[in-house]
Amino acid sequence: MSRLVNQQDLEFLLFDMFSAGALQHYPRYADYDTETIHSMLSTAQGLAEDYFLPHFQKADAQEPQFDGDSVTTIPELKQAWQQFADAGFLAARQSHEQGGLQMPALVNMACQSYFMAANPATAAYPFLTSAAANVIQAFGSREQQQRYLPAMFSGRFAGTMALTEPAVGSSLGDLTTKATAARDGTYRIKGQKMYISGGDQDLTENIVHLVLARIEGAPIGVKGISMFIVPKFLVNEDGSLGARNDVALAGLLHKMGYRGTTSTVLNFGEQDQCVGYLVGEPNRGLEYMFKMMNEARIGVGLGAAMIGYRGYLESLAYAKERPQGRAPDNKDPSTAAIPIIEHADVKRMLISQKTYVEGSLALCLLAARLVDEDEAGGDADAAILLDLLTPIVKSYPSYYGPRANDLAIQVLGGSGYIREYPVEQCYRDNRLNPIHEGTHGIQGLDLLGRKLWQQQGKGQKLLLRRIHKTLAEVRTIPELAPLADRYEQALQPLLQHILVAGERLQAGEIKPTLAQASVFLDVMGTYVVAWLWLDMARLAKVKAEQDDSFNDFTQGKVAAAKHFMQWELTQAESALASLNQFASGWDQIAPEWL
Amino acid sequence: MSRLVNQQDLEFLLFDMFSAGALQHYPRYADYDTETIHSMLSTAQGLAEDYFLPHFQKADAQEPQFDGDSVTTIPELKQAWQQFADAGFLAARQSHEQGGLQMPALVNMACQSYFMAANPATAAYPFLTSAAANVIQAFGSREQQQRYLPAMFSGRFAGTMALTEPAVGSSLGDLTTKATAARDGTYRIKGQKMYISGGDQDLTENIVHLVLARIEGAPIGVKGISMFIVPKFLVNEDGSLGARNDVALAGLLHKMGYRGTTSTVLNFGEQDQCVGYLVGEPNRGLEYMFKMMNEARIGVGLGAAMIGYRGYLESLAYAKERPQGRAPDNKDPSTAAIPIIEHADVKRMLISQKTYVEGSLALCLLAARLVDEDEAGGDADAAILLDLLTPIVKSYPSYYGPRANDLAIQVLGGSGYIREYPVEQCYRDNRLNPIHEGTHGIQGLDLLGRKLWQQQGKGQKLLLRRIHKTLAEVRTIPELAPLADRYEQALQPLLQHILVAGERLQAGEIKPTLAQASVFLDVMGTYVVAWLWLDMARLAKVKAEQDDSFNDFTQGKVAAAKHFMQWELTQAESALASLNQFASGWDQIAPEWL
Repeated sequence: MSRLVNQQDLEFLLFDMFSAGALQHYPRYADYDTETIHSMLSTAQGLAEDYFLPHFQKADAQEPQFDGDSVTTIPELKQAWQQFADAGFLAARQSHEQGGLQMPALVNMACQSYFMAANPATAAYPFLTSAAANVIQAFGSREQQQRYLPAMFSGRFAGTMALTEPAVGSSLGDLTTKATAARDGTYRIKGQKMYISGGDQDLTENIVHLVLARIEGAPIGVKGISMFIVPKFLVNEDGSLGARNDVALAGLLHKMGYRGTTSTVLNFGEQDQCVGYLVGEPNRGLEYMFKMMNEARIGVGLGAAMIGYRGYLESLAYAKERPQGRAPDNKDPSTAAIPIIEHADVKRMLISQKTYVEGSLALCLLAARLVDEDEAGGDADAAILLDLLTPIVKSYPSYYGPRANDLAIQVLGGSGYIREYPVEQCYRDNRLNPIHEGTHGIQGLDLLGRKLWQQQGKGQKLLLRRIHKTLAEVRTIPELAPLADRYEQALQPLLQHILVAGERLQAGEIKPTLAQASVFLDVMGTYVVAWLWLDMARLAKVKAEQDDSFNDFTQGKVAAAKHFMQWELTQAESALASLNQFASGWDQIAPEWL
Repeated sequence: MSRLVNQQDLEFLLFDMFSAGALQHYPRYADYDTETIHSMLSTAQGLAEDYFLPHFQKADAQEPQFDGDSVTTIPELKQAWQQFADAGFLAARQSHEQGGLQMPALVNMACQSYFMAANPATAAYPFLTSAAANVIQAFGSREQQQRYLPAMFSGRFAGTMALTEPAVGSSLGDLTTKATAARDGTYRIKGQKMYISGGDQDLTENIVHLVLARIEGAPIGVKGISMFIVPKFLVNEDGSLGARNDVALAGLLHKMGYRGTTSTVLNFGEQDQCVGYLVGEPNRGLEYMFKMMNEARIGVGLGAAMIGYRGYLESLAYAKERPQGRAPDNKDPSTAAIPIIEHADVKRMLISQKTYVEGSLALCLLAARLVDEDEAGGDADAAILLDLLTPIVKSYPSYYGPRANDLAIQVLGGSGYIREYPVEQCYRDNRLNPIHEGTHGIQGLDLLGRKLWQQQGKGQKLLLRRIHKTLAEVRTIPELAPLADRYEQALQPLLQHILVAGERLQAGEIKPTLAQASVFLDVMGTYVVAWLWLDMARLAKVKAEQDDSFNDFTQGKVAAAKHFMQWELTQAESALASLNQFASGWDQIAPEWL
């Protein structure tokens, strides 16, 4: 079995759960029949295994070096980048006219899952480049598109998102990078950005930074932020490189994990010569960036899910192979040691991982399916539901993926703690995900402070409608019916909690209500994933009736769904009860008490 | 404030909670008046800050190197080692006749807390050496004691515990290293040991390995294991070094954290010339090792607690200094950013850390107090209670210390993820603790399978008696009385659970009952720490009445106790309910479903 993702699971999710086979009914995706999808998956798997996986550990051990002048990365990284570009994946989502593969989001997400599992740090470069290109595609002028996109799609140029500043962190409204209009219609950019992933590297001829800055005289706060294209090298009309722009690498940051991805401090306009090109209209930069951020957030969720998934498969393989100890009711030391997968506690650690990572992957693919329903199908409801779920899609995998990796280490024991095995790196890599693209706390505020209430809570209603549909279907299967009952019983306190939170926010009790946002985010994430587990178990049962080769698979899905209802959902329900009972606790702790 | 430990907290725990001032009533500790204790603490703090802390990050970045011949460590490590030895801490617990400080375990533990917080990887060398010396002191012959102990106490020799073998892991009964009697009464040792911390280094002239091996013809399983002293260099009668023994470093293992401590694969007897000296009687090696292991387990708990504590203080300092964002009910971007400690979610992350780490430190100091009551006071009950609590003292900090470190990273955000700040290293270092000296799973089996039932459950009764005493005292303070009620209410399901588990084990339902051991261990750990939080809150209230400088401190302890009852205890109670309802789940998952 591949150690990147369980193929049976991925195909089950794609085709059975999220009906990838039906995507071709959308005119845009008419080419995407089942065979084409399989062929794309197989290409992605091949590239991931041949060009991304082999340097997973090497890119960590030999992280990028900066000699004060330029950055050096390992050669394998460049090769992986070029293979990825040559296969067309940088432009996977673009239309044929743009030279893209016109690939459905769902299929693209499934393909990406292989790269993220194989080597998330290397996969970050194309991921960021596609995201930046998508913004230029959506909001850039035709001239900007023509100048940058072909080079970005072919892998000549890479892209970044340059938002964060040293003094600002998550509080984007406070950013101070300045943009001054020049006579030629361009701008001069001045300021420092930090934690810019891929902000410098030696993979590509050029780097296209999407920089958030304030045009002189713009309103303070989030309403005065504009977006600029700031290339590392200026680009001539014919696409050839011009002069070096005034963008300087001030230094590399050294991360705990994700070491293969450069994390940079960039100085824009040290010589007052940094040329930037306004994207779209002034003062709408954050809005454009969020269009990209939302896709990026789903991508972060997928990365977290797949690092977790990889750890799960590694620990599963280890547990099957490693003999150690005996059953606790066997005191005879002359009997042979058993594989550790026979130990109940190892089973617990494996099934916990399984629920986190397969649940997370299902969640990300659901989000991708909603992107398709919205963009290709024009289903406005899908867009609303996606909007509601985005903070959860970003955060649930980012929170529970690292927990899965923690359990993977524990399954391996001492071997799990040394760099000779890959799971410790998974643990380090995955720890980034609750931080970047909006921290856990920011996502919580987004969900509880905003997304739940948009359009009179329509997203909630859409979600609930889907959940009730699943519950009704699950109840037709006797073995699973009690799980549906259990879920429905747990659902009431959640709905009540949301209702009360809404009332409190309406009544102006903003601080104490939002003090619970992060925990509420975790809780609601578990509820959403629990729903997906019910659906997976149900569909697997249906599948097994048609196809014997799904028997073990289905037993696994059912066992995992039971575990999740019995364990994770119960913990979430308990957390909810604690939140209800002690609503204002954290808010009222004085700093000097800590 | 020191960033190693909050001194007010440490002294409160020592003197108010665990009555260090009363230790001098034990004849052995007659010298340990309050002033002496303070002076010891201050020596420890000074050494930790001057010699351990400064190379915390350097020892991680420049981990020990093995060139195939010898190991090289950074020079700061050697200096720290020698300072520690010169201050007498290697022999802290030994009697004056042995040249020791005759220090109470409680005071020693408090001193160690500084070293563990400052640099756990460097502190591991003296920790292991003291532990090995204690075994030789307890079980070695007079001749062995004379030959090895003075050199170990002065820092000329270091010590290790060599238990684990590559194919064996936690299943010590299966170890295969052989010992063959030679004509001169010594033995020839042959076998390979793995994950031996400090198994080679360049700090000391010599290394004294305590090796577990089987004498030819010994019974299989744990009853045929003997302990041997195997020095790296043989030691002449006059204490000078003799020939190199046949112990070879096969290689270093490269850990995720704790990188300053060498982790080694050692080959004993590659040339059939490895000389070992039997300690005590044949086939009692595991019993001797467990004597040491129990102290080592408390030490691991302390290490985990202090790495967590360090992370807490680092993130607390950062949160106070770092301005970012505004209150969620303030939408005016022209107002100044507030320190992030003002954000409710940051407060939540800080108070959670506080409960884990201060609770863990209290737990470890309780264990040390029990060691004193047993060893110096001759209180057999203390020994029984300590025995019951040891798996919890090892595991609670090892489980929740890393969680605290996870939260510390999250408080710092991007800064938390880069090696320019210390919290990511804390996170990596602490991940070792649920693995070594008996994994989490092993500790769970020890608690639920053995410790709870020893001497007809006398440990349980002793613990319960102490808990009820605390509850009665807490009830005399009106503000805290509801917490005592809450605890008592939560206690009933725990006691019921233990009762039923005992009955099931008696009835032979061993596998399904012990399948829950790890989770039960977490649950019971939370109950024990919740009890300590009640007691801390109560004592702090008493203290604040006498001393105004304890006002904020006490508010903090009370807020933490409330948080713990409301949050952690509720989660534990919910976990217990899940265990009760679905008693046999994990055990019955088939490997092929995973």
